[in-house]
Amino acid sequence: MRSISRTESFPAHTPAVSQVFTIVLSHGPLTRLEVARRAGLSAAAVTKAVRPLMEAGYLAEGADQDAPPALGRPANLVRVDGGRALFIGVKVTGDEIIGVLADLCCRIRVARHVPLTDRDPKAVLSSIADLAQELRTEADDLGVQVLGLGLAVSGDVDRGEGVVRYSPFLEWRDVRLAELAAMTTGLPVTVDNDVRALTVAEQWFGAGAGLTDFAVVTVGAGIGCGLVVHGQVVAGAHGVAGEIGHVVVDPAGPLCHCGNRGCVEAIAGDAAIVARVREVTGVQVADTAEALALAHQGDAGAREVYARAGEAIGRGIATVVNLFGPERVIISGEGLAAYDLFAEQIRDSFAEAAFGSAARCDVHTRPLPFDEWARGAAATAIQSFIRSDT
Amino acid sequence: MRSISRTESFPAHTPAVSQVFTIVLSHGPLTRLEVARRAGLSAAAVTKAVRPLMEAGYLAEGADQDAPPALGRPANLVRVDGGRALFIGVKVTGDEIIGVLADLCCRIRVARHVPLTDRDPKAVLSSIADLAQELRTEADDLGVQVLGLGLAVSGDVDRGEGVVRYSPFLEWRDVRLAELAAMTTGLPVTVDNDVRALTVAEQWFGAGAGLTDFAVVTVGAGIGCGLVVHGQVVAGAHGVAGEIGHVVVDPAGPLCHCGNRGCVEAIAGDAAIVARVREVTGVQVADTAEALALAHQGDAGAREVYARAGEAIGRGIATVVNLFGPERVIISGEGLAAYDLFAEQIRDSFAEAAFGSAARCDVHTRPLPFDEWARGAAATAIQSFIRSDT
Ligand SMILES: [Zn+2]
Ligand SMILES: [Zn+2]
Repeated sequence: MRSISRTESFPAHTPAVSQVFTIVLSHGPLTRLEVARRAGLSAAAVTKAVRPLMEAGYLAEGADQDAPPALGRPANLVRVDGGRALFIGVKVTGDEIIGVLADLCCRIRVARHVPLTDRDPKAVLSSIADLAQELRTEADDLGVQVLGLGLAVSGDVDRGEGVVRYSPFLEWRDVRLAELAAMTTGLPVTVDNDVRALTVAEQWFGAGAGLTDFAVVTVGAGIGCGLVVHGQVVAGAHGVAGEIGHVVVDPAGPLCHCGNRGCVEAIAGDAAIVARVREVTGVQVADTAEALALAHQGDAGAREVYARAGEAIGRGIATVVNLFGPERVIISGEGLAAYDLFAEQIRDSFAEAAFGSAARCDVHTRPLPFDEWARGAAATAIQSFIRSDT
Repeated sequence: MRSISRTESFPAHTPAVSQVFTIVLSHGPLTRLEVARRAGLSAAAVTKAVRPLMEAGYLAEGADQDAPPALGRPANLVRVDGGRALFIGVKVTGDEIIGVLADLCCRIRVARHVPLTDRDPKAVLSSIADLAQELRTEADDLGVQVLGLGLAVSGDVDRGEGVVRYSPFLEWRDVRLAELAAMTTGLPVTVDNDVRALTVAEQWFGAGAGLTDFAVVTVGAGIGCGLVVHGQVVAGAHGVAGEIGHVVVDPAGPLCHCGNRGCVEAIAGDAAIVARVREVTGVQVADTAEALALAHQGDAGAREVYARAGEAIGRGIATVVNLFGPERVIISGEGLAAYDLFAEQIRDSFAEAAFGSAARCDVHTRPLPFDEWARGAAATAIQSFIRSDT
């Protein structure tokens, strides 16, 4: 449906232009020399790639304001003009739609939350269209054009085809979301799995910038994992990858929705924690917030449930690290609200199960406001805008 | 030490030349048009890359003998002249050194086994040097020059630095094997982990040719795994990757040498199987061959041990597949001698633990004569010869 869109497109989709722009986006501001070094291109090739980007206003060049004056004439730095274009990122959960308006540097300008009452694709699509329209009005007020829409959904998503193959939370199967959303919004649409979208945001604009191999582990309703190997997000030949939530840590453990027993998610996912806290303490906590409150009040049973969850997460992370050897693991997700209750267990069980020097992997946490999921969706839209091939 | 070597080198190490040669090596014979298509290069760029390779005799061009005559003049095909150069591949195990002389297409011409009585690096090095000399004499008889030596060792190996960081079977720590072997043999030396070397052989010359994402799982003394993601072998930021042997399948299971309980290797590795067969049957089997014989005679206890081993392997494979979604898993290794005793269990437990469409991954077996390990080492030498950067 992209052909009917009247939105502006990226100046030139040659590999060099995409590469130079991506480098400045992730690492800028940079001197042209530094861009050439990082891209492995000649100065002439960089000049050729930079020109159309400057002409279109995506890149700007100017003196380095932060350079110490003692060093003489400040170096000219190339930077992305973040305000040049806007993108909409939308995360669809089982009960809410979160939308953000992000600039070309993936900085959030506006965020909106809309409750979701009907999970039928048509209803969700109409909510997405309304939200996108609202955000485009905001963009008009800023006088900047919206150049793409990214949608992030949990489950098995085929980004290349723009199809949600299976989403348990939404109870969707084979929904051609990209095509449908492009039709209703008139924007170029990118659809991706939510954890992978978050991983793209970390890779381009976050704690993964500059790393070729890292993992993002998300803790919350589900336990997910986005993997970047050799500089690219792992998608899986059949759309499945990063299923850390279904690494079995205890074959005698609780039944998981995937049919196995003792998966990380069946021990450390939100629903598992709530169920187990009820079982252990006898207190009928209604949700994660109440389970967490009980543990924070010092209830030994509830605290033990979180400790076991931490052990399971640590074990899952060790499995990922033993198999891929990433440089860094970034733990994120709304489940980090309980971080004080399981941080030590994550660390200890990771260290115990990490094989040899794999234990040297840098495991760190990054609190995740819920808007970040939508920002991840915006990052995929920016990525698609820059790289025609994705 | 490569600078002192007087061996011939690859004509030109430009990316295009390496790429074109690699494509013809893995997929040839091919028409130039097909090479251009696969490389994403222009016809002119292919011509430019092919010329020095033809001049140096690494590539040859000729009419397609197999083309049906009805189609008129047969197309000219570009092929690698396998006999143009030879490479030595050596696999070092705890009690044996296996060496092969392989041609440029990684076909084994000669294989030699030498028992290893002393595991001290100096003694091993001297055995490697003797074996290499013997194989070079064979090469002289064939009238072809040996252009590189590949060494494969199990354990934590840093290929870039040419250092064996830790090899449990050899009890080595931080042995600068590449440098030492280059000094004693005068050949350019590549040192790699044995499973990764085998994976390179599968990627370039075997069941992984043409795939961008696949795994090789080896079953035997250890349970190993080589991963190819986005077309490249995964090495691990800290030298550790593919440790499928230490995926925990039963936290209440037998103690593993890594310190954890119930690892795949602690259930399905050779030593674990022998110990468990003794324990279950009361028969003091001396080694894997005797354990296997007992099971093949129909001993129910011994058969059960193999069945459990198969379950553990299947679970380990499912973990790999759930995390990175390869197109294919190739099971190999000398442990496949017991394949009839655990094939069904591998298949069933994989299917049970695979998440959603990940179960569609093609899991297949490939019997592995021991020489194949040495062939893997030769493949790394060929790879280094072609790509100056590896
Ligand atoms: Zn599960
Ligand atoms: Zn282990």
